[in-house]
Amino acid sequence: MSIIVLGTVALDTVKTPQGLRKNMLGGSAVHFSMSARVFTPVNLVAIVGRDFPQRHIRFLKERGIILASLICDSGKTFRWEGEYQGDLNCAITKNTQLGVLLKFCPRVSRQQKGIKNVFLANVDPDLQNRLLDCLDSPQLVALDSMNYWIEHKPKPLLRLLKRVDIYLANDQEARALSGEHNLIKAAKYLNRLGPQMVLIKKGEHGVIFYCPGFIISLPAYPTDKVVDPTGAGDTFAGGFMGYLCGKKKLSQANIKKAIAYGTIAASFNVEGFGVEKTAGLCWRDLEKRLFQFKKILAF
Amino acid sequence: MSIIVLGTVALDTVKTPQGLRKNMLGGSAVHFSMSARVFTPVNLVAIVGRDFPQRHIRFLKERGIILASLICDSGKTFRWEGEYQGDLNCAITKNTQLGVLLKFCPRVSRQQKGIKNVFLANVDPDLQNRLLDCLDSPQLVALDSMNYWIEHKPKPLLRLLKRVDIYLANDQEARALSGEHNLIKAAKYLNRLGPQMVLIKKGEHGVIFYCPGFIISLPAYPTDKVVDPTGAGDTFAGGFMGYLCGKKKLSQANIKKAIAYGTIAASFNVEGFGVEKTAGLCWRDLEKRLFQFKKILAF
Repeated sequence: MSIIVLGTVALDTVKTPQGLRKNMLGGSAVHFSMSARVFTPVNLVAIVGRDFPQRHIRFLKERGIILASLICDSGKTFRWEGEYQGDLNCAITKNTQLGVLLKFCPRVSRQQKGIKNVFLANVDPDLQNRLLDCLDSPQLVALDSMNYWIEHKPKPLLRLLKRVDIYLANDQEARALSGEHNLIKAAKYLNRLGPQMVLIKKGEHGVIFYCPGFIISLPAYPTDKVVDPTGAGDTFAGGFMGYLCGKKKLSQANIKKAIAYGTIAASFNVEGFGVEKTAGLCWRDLEKRLFQFKKILAF
Repeated sequence: MSIIVLGTVALDTVKTPQGLRKNMLGGSAVHFSMSARVFTPVNLVAIVGRDFPQRHIRFLKERGIILASLICDSGKTFRWEGEYQGDLNCAITKNTQLGVLLKFCPRVSRQQKGIKNVFLANVDPDLQNRLLDCLDSPQLVALDSMNYWIEHKPKPLLRLLKRVDIYLANDQEARALSGEHNLIKAAKYLNRLGPQMVLIKKGEHGVIFYCPGFIISLPAYPTDKVVDPTGAGDTFAGGFMGYLCGKKKLSQANIKKAIAYGTIAASFNVEGFGVEKTAGLCWRDLEKRLFQFKKILAF
């Protein structure tokens, strides 16, 4: 079963204690695709400007990403410039140029309307709602959002929460939207807003998953080679959703395994700038590290 | 094999969003004892003042804590007053009255000199060094310390690190002492200062354990009933050291299990004020919740 991802395709400039990279291929939909593609065909819905390098298009195509709904329009590609200092959990945004993102109206091809699995990566909730309107009968819809939208577009975001099955938020977002500091209380609150399942991402501290009657808490895969955490959350989501797409049942066992795959995928992402370490990611890499992760957790 | 714990016996006044409790029995050695006693006889080395309520002495004795080296001296018992607001990971100290702690000189009875397992809970590193001087040939020594001593007594603390097998620090302390933000890098740095094993406590996010060639990362037991986290770290240490005391080998499997028991013990501690929830803690309670914890982690 294939998946459709709505998000950004960006040119990222990132500075971390490990160095500086300018105009790298980035964006939420790209990071998601790099891990989801290991499990399932990925249909990318996004917009880029005429300045978007052809080599990045080739790069995505070579990795099997389906670009039928990647719009290329006049104007500049979305650019993000950020810096990480001591605390690699927390990006400092230096500059954002929305460019063509300002006129983005997502559309999908006729063949894509029937796709059952959807990931709404972080973009304007109005666009996320619109993508759902385009689809015939999505069955598993996951939503990622951001503090910015919680503050600036609470109404469309709340409407969206009633239309999705899984809400992925980071700890700050979960606390901001729920008003609860304890993350399990926060997850329970978010669950009552609509999504059957809530997954809270805690960066270097792993994730908490909640659905009524069922809690999972897993640490991050321990690594001291953190180079650039940009896109780790989306890479997690790609592994998580990619694995779930192939499963008939959302059983506890499948959800746990999906979280573990997401965790492992994210651990590769942080070990290089941009998509350096996920560009060549394959099933074997994931399996090898998953085995180590299991060993770490078993007692 | 019994264990000896050096630390504080205190009267705590704690305010949390769940309420206020005045002059509760508290202190690092007490919290440690509440979980360690489930596994092994606990010898407590501490000082209290003449104002220390006899009911607390009875309480400790009834739980089998060996008080041969609990000094009762003229003066006031150590008192700590703290408050937790939204972030229950972080106590705001409102008042500290050291009282008799200022003239504390730890001593142990002749029979206690031969005890092989030692936990040095958070007190002045000079006192921690002195306790080690009193003992014949300790075999497993664990040390807990605090930001305050890292700043004010770095030399005796560094000397101490060369004399212990396990160093337990919280994430802030590990970062402060190592100058590293990444906790695995921090653990590696601390390991090079002396202790063979380093255990970093991350509060609600669980723990990371490091010794050369071997890393463990476990989340906290997920609970939304956090009432008062005071003493959670010491309760963790009690479960961890208590379990290890009974083992002949410090194998990876035993260390993991010890961390899991410590995690479970701490989860009981936070669910009540002071020692409310650990006062009656028994093996069955730990086993029951450990089973749940295993289920949460297995995939």
